[in-house]
Amino acid sequence: MVRFPMTTEARLPHEEMQALIERGDAEAVCEQLDDLAVEDIRYTIHRLGPAEKVRLLHLLSEAHSDTAATLMEHFGDSQAANLVEDLPAASAASILRELDSDDRADILRAVEPDHAQRIIQRLDPEDAADARRLVAYPSNSAGGLMITEYLAHRATESIQSVLFDLQRHAEEYARYDVQYVYVTGERGELLGVIRLRDLVLTPGDRPLSQILIPNPRHVRVTDEQTQLQAFFDEHGFFAAPVVDERGVLVGVVRRAAVVEAQAEQAGRALLAFGGIIGGEELRSMPTRTRILRRLMFLCPNILLNLLAASVVAMYEPTIAAVTALAIFLPMLSDMSGCAGNQAVAVSIRELSLGWIKPRDLWHTLNKEVGVGVINGLVLGFLIGAIAWLMRGEDWPLIGVVVGGAMCLNSVVAVVIGGTVPLLLRRGGVDPALAASPILTTFTDLCGFFLTLQLATAVLL
Amino acid sequence: MVRFPMTTEARLPHEEMQALIERGDAEAVCEQLDDLAVEDIRYTIHRLGPAEKVRLLHLLSEAHSDTAATLMEHFGDSQAANLVEDLPAASAASILRELDSDDRADILRAVEPDHAQRIIQRLDPEDAADARRLVAYPSNSAGGLMITEYLAHRATESIQSVLFDLQRHAEEYARYDVQYVYVTGERGELLGVIRLRDLVLTPGDRPLSQILIPNPRHVRVTDEQTQLQAFFDEHGFFAAPVVDERGVLVGVVRRAAVVEAQAEQAGRALLAFGGIIGGEELRSMPTRTRILRRLMFLCPNILLNLLAASVVAMYEPTIAAVTALAIFLPMLSDMSGCAGNQAVAVSIRELSLGWIKPRDLWHTLNKEVGVGVINGLVLGFLIGAIAWLMRGEDWPLIGVVVGGAMCLNSVVAVVIGGTVPLLLRRGGVDPALAASPILTTFTDLCGFFLTLQLATAVLL
Repeated sequence: MVRFPMTTEARLPHEEMQALIERGDAEAVCEQLDDLAVEDIRYTIHRLGPAEKVRLLHLLSEAHSDTAATLMEHFGDSQAANLVEDLPAASAASILRELDSDDRADILRAVEPDHAQRIIQRLDPEDAADARRLVAYPSNSAGGLMITEYLAHRATESIQSVLFDLQRHAEEYARYDVQYVYVTGERGELLGVIRLRDLVLTPGDRPLSQILIPNPRHVRVTDEQTQLQAFFDEHGFFAAPVVDERGVLVGVVRRAAVVEAQAEQAGRALLAFGGIIGGEELRSMPTRTRILRRLMFLCPNILLNLLAASVVAMYEPTIAAVTALAIFLPMLSDMSGCAGNQAVAVSIRELSLGWIKPRDLWHTLNKEVGVGVINGLVLGFLIGAIAWLMRGEDWPLIGVVVGGAMCLNSVVAVVIGGTVPLLLRRGGVDPALAASPILTTFTDLCGFFLTLQLATAVLL
Repeated sequence: MVRFPMTTEARLPHEEMQALIERGDAEAVCEQLDDLAVEDIRYTIHRLGPAEKVRLLHLLSEAHSDTAATLMEHFGDSQAANLVEDLPAASAASILRELDSDDRADILRAVEPDHAQRIIQRLDPEDAADARRLVAYPSNSAGGLMITEYLAHRATESIQSVLFDLQRHAEEYARYDVQYVYVTGERGELLGVIRLRDLVLTPGDRPLSQILIPNPRHVRVTDEQTQLQAFFDEHGFFAAPVVDERGVLVGVVRRAAVVEAQAEQAGRALLAFGGIIGGEELRSMPTRTRILRRLMFLCPNILLNLLAASVVAMYEPTIAAVTALAIFLPMLSDMSGCAGNQAVAVSIRELSLGWIKPRDLWHTLNKEVGVGVINGLVLGFLIGAIAWLMRGEDWPLIGVVVGGAMCLNSVVAVVIGGTVPLLLRRGGVDPALAASPILTTFTDLCGFFLTLQLATAVLL
């Protein structure tokens, strides 16, 4: 590996860290981490290689499992899962023990099932039961986003006893970010909610049933992320109770978890749009994994390109007669792709924000056609002028051919670019991943055909 | 406009809404909004045309300004600003009055300054002063993200008096999402913070100075979004006090505001990656705006394409001799672009998460070269095989030429794709917007040169 060029005489934090891991000095690692700002910690641990990360976590899991857990939170779920798979079950369990129930479940969900079971067996019985339950929910549902750390009291208890409980367990509850106390009935069913600030303002000898807000707003454990987003958009709550199909309180989903899942999703959409399949790619992943995942996107793309190439092959005699066309075909392909990808991006964005629905094909088509026609005229004129200036002496009408094809193909590009994401979403395919390859296949096919057919008619 | 095909006999919500706006029936509009779920409200108002949106807001601004304000929150800031610019200052003021101070400032920041002044003059004096102050901060700084609705009390006050104040203004404060009480000194400087739950647990006759957490964690009004992200990553707080350069408490920034800004940014990065300049594009924007903004990205792209085209032009005699090359040049261009864009996407993602820094050119290059070589061999072999199968009879070595060029160009593509975003970020240019056009210019230039030079050497 080429060495990073040194700008100062001192070692960079991740090189320092590498040396400490090598020495197996957990204390010194913790000291170094204490000295670093969060941004630097995040950067430093991501610069470590996969084996170094595992060794670091293993090292800390014995006496510093809380620190190891903090580091774990800096990794995406799939990467954290990969690291956990390389740790002995006992080390993994002592780290995961320190995490919030939702983060723990997110990781365990992605760990190979047998290893996950071995880890879960080593958790405290209560945590283990929670983990088994949470792992079963899809990661972006209320069940997957909720935490099981919350305060629930029976409706028959008195305010005083709740305050007493709060006081006694103040330290433990500090981790829970307590804002609400949930009130349940006999079977654990959700009866009401009490805001902490209302507890403050009420004499303490009355039962909770007298001050609770009855039939509180709640979400269902099966609710999906978009439903949760809508819920928190509508209500200003910090958190919402989650109930199962029998109305039993099973967890609490925090607004922050939903917004973070949304940010996460937008980030992954950008990766998919760039042709990265299967979520996160990190440069610290094993090279083999990265190569295979990238090829999974590139290889099908060759086949799509072959379709467009076969159109060109059909018109080889035309190209032999007007070789200048070879100059403009790649340009036409690129410009059409760009024009169409603008429409793809807008459609993906509008879909993800709920501003259009998959059924709005006509609406989208209408909105794009106008843009396509005008932009087609502008781009067609410009590219036509370039073609005429470059090769007009030999083929006087080449500008008309290339410009005309560009103009028509711009309309095709924005119409396909605008509507394909809607169709893909309807079909349950991620538009960010598939729309662009489909778009460029069509625009190439169509653009090459238009140019070469026009050329055959006009120039030959 | 082509009509949306009706699936039921009833009118769709936005058609119903259009009719009510046409009639000027504010009461009926409010009733319709009450009947719709949030998702449907968001969708419905986005389906209205720009003029209809303005008329709707104007209609509601008289007797239903709270409803108008709720609708305003569904629009992005720049779109909300456009709508506000089309409203009379008095209507705009009565709507903006209902918004939280941060949302109000976000919109006013984007409104044309004279009109913004006219609106601010019509707000309550206190709100107006806040708005003038907040508008001056950049939107993604602590100043731009903070709210000015928070509870601050002097250190000399007693707990009892704070609780009394809470009780008296319970309704008003409910809007503030009170979790903390901030304690200030003589000059308004931040002395400490008290969690609401600690207020509950302490006898009421002591002064705040005895129970406050002194020197609380805070952010500076000039802190940028990445610093705020790091702050909230490090600390589990719901909100952080914001102080100015003199240590005076000037606002409170909520975790949710920071995470939402992050999600917003990731969404805009996807748009930029698709070639949409200048933030949000909505299909409900005026067509002329959309056309101009899209052309601002496409036109410079023509010039970049011209660079690549001029390489092909230089080799026209080679193409005249081996016309099959015209079939494979667009394919090579597209595949190289795809391979490079994967690296672009990963770099943008890693940069935005703080996992790599703009200076990590060597690290990124090292990580990409390996992937590029292997993927280059695979893609080169496949495309070479295709070329040989398609045209091997006429030009036996064409597979070697096309495959060899593809192989080499894959390495170029991932190296440029991986590093250009870092260089752009160093130069203060948005990598999501500029990296892909720069990448494809280079990969085209280089790919065409490699193919045609190899062809000239081997096939002629």
